[in-house]
Amino acid sequence: MKLYDAAWAPSPRRVRIYLAEKGIEIERVPVDLRRDEQLSDAYLAINPRGAVPALELDDGEVITESAAICRYFEAANPAPPLFGATPIDIARIESWTRRIESDGYVAAAYAFRNSLPVFKDRGVTGKWPPIPQIPELATRGAVMWKAFAEGLDEHLGHGEWIAGDAYSFADITALVTVDFAAKAGLDTHGCGHIGRWHKAAAARPSAGA
Amino acid sequence: MKLYDAAWAPSPRRVRIYLAEKGIEIERVPVDLRRDEQLSDAYLAINPRGAVPALELDDGEVITESAAICRYFEAANPAPPLFGATPIDIARIESWTRRIESDGYVAAAYAFRNSLPVFKDRGVTGKWPPIPQIPELATRGAVMWKAFAEGLDEHLGHGEWIAGDAYSFADITALVTVDFAAKAGLDTHGCGHIGRWHKAAAARPSAGA
Repeated sequence: MKLYDAAWAPSPRRVRIYLAEKGIEIERVPVDLRRDEQLSDAYLAINPRGAVPALELDDGEVITESAAICRYFEAANPAPPLFGATPIDIARIESWTRRIESDGYVAAAYAFRNSLPVFKDRGVTGKWPPIPQIPELATRGAVMWKAFAEGLDEHLGHGEWIAGDAYSFADITALVTVDFAAKAGLDTHGCGHIGRWHKAAAARPSAGA
Repeated sequence: MKLYDAAWAPSPRRVRIYLAEKGIEIERVPVDLRRDEQLSDAYLAINPRGAVPALELDDGEVITESAAICRYFEAANPAPPLFGATPIDIARIESWTRRIESDGYVAAAYAFRNSLPVFKDRGVTGKWPPIPQIPELATRGAVMWKAFAEGLDEHLGHGEWIAGDAYSFADITALVTVDFAAKAGLDTHGCGHIGRWHKAAAARPSAGA
């Protein structure tokens, strides 16, 4: 089994943090995004969608999508449960994970992909026909990010972690998202509860995975 | 337990189809999107995000996000497994569900929300500060939809259902997405495998839920 990985990108980092929290070690194959190795013929033969991460199983089947890769490991290694164990914990973790992705991660990606010259005609991650950048999307991303951060900050005023009493996949998703957003120029200044939570999440050994 | 629901919108329909496949019946409260009832003070007191569906539990807790609502029921009612039972089935279903959402559903939403005058300054679903429409996003949605539909069509040439041998949450997600895209003017003409699959998925009694 091999994980196709990339050093600083948010989605592979989500999988690495997840695996570190579970204590799972697997072979990792670096893909150099700065050289667009994810769009090379060799990598497209592994993942035609041209994105990392991708998990190649021993029989050759390739699993894409960071959440799907994590759920694959979760099904085989249920403890500790990072996607929840009871119906209500499962629902809370999935709900927050989805909200962080659709409101926060998407906002960061809008800002990141639609302003930097390096992504000209590559407005969406992965292998696509030419997709022009849309500068107004960076503006939309900033509006969404501010509203998202305020909502998350208010929520974190009520508990230590994001979904229920324990650290979960929602926290992993949020950590990756907040750090990615910072790279896109979107901050959480003034959000004291996020600051407290971020310090605790970033202090876990998994955060450096 | 009550499900806040809306007649034609794709996300509530995803939950209704899921519940019909599982044979679960619960109280449903209609929210009239044509009158913007989802943005009324009364509904925002239930779901401050201003979106449907929302599941109100008997203790008053509210679960948002259609996938989270379905996973709540799946945890309590595992058979038949619509999110998979083995690690590989779980991974395949999650991977395809995510791909359908990020490449197909997002494309349809781009086209739908950024062209109709009724969504002026409401470019994203739910309760947000004013978010101007971006006409170029409708164009981006069309480019993404074509590539997504071609990829799904090719994939459906290899099997009856989308993820593995059985009908799953990925098929529910795709049915809702393809029908929503059609409302946004994005079709699957020329995609014969999708046509065959759509006919089979739409013929299930759950499709009319």
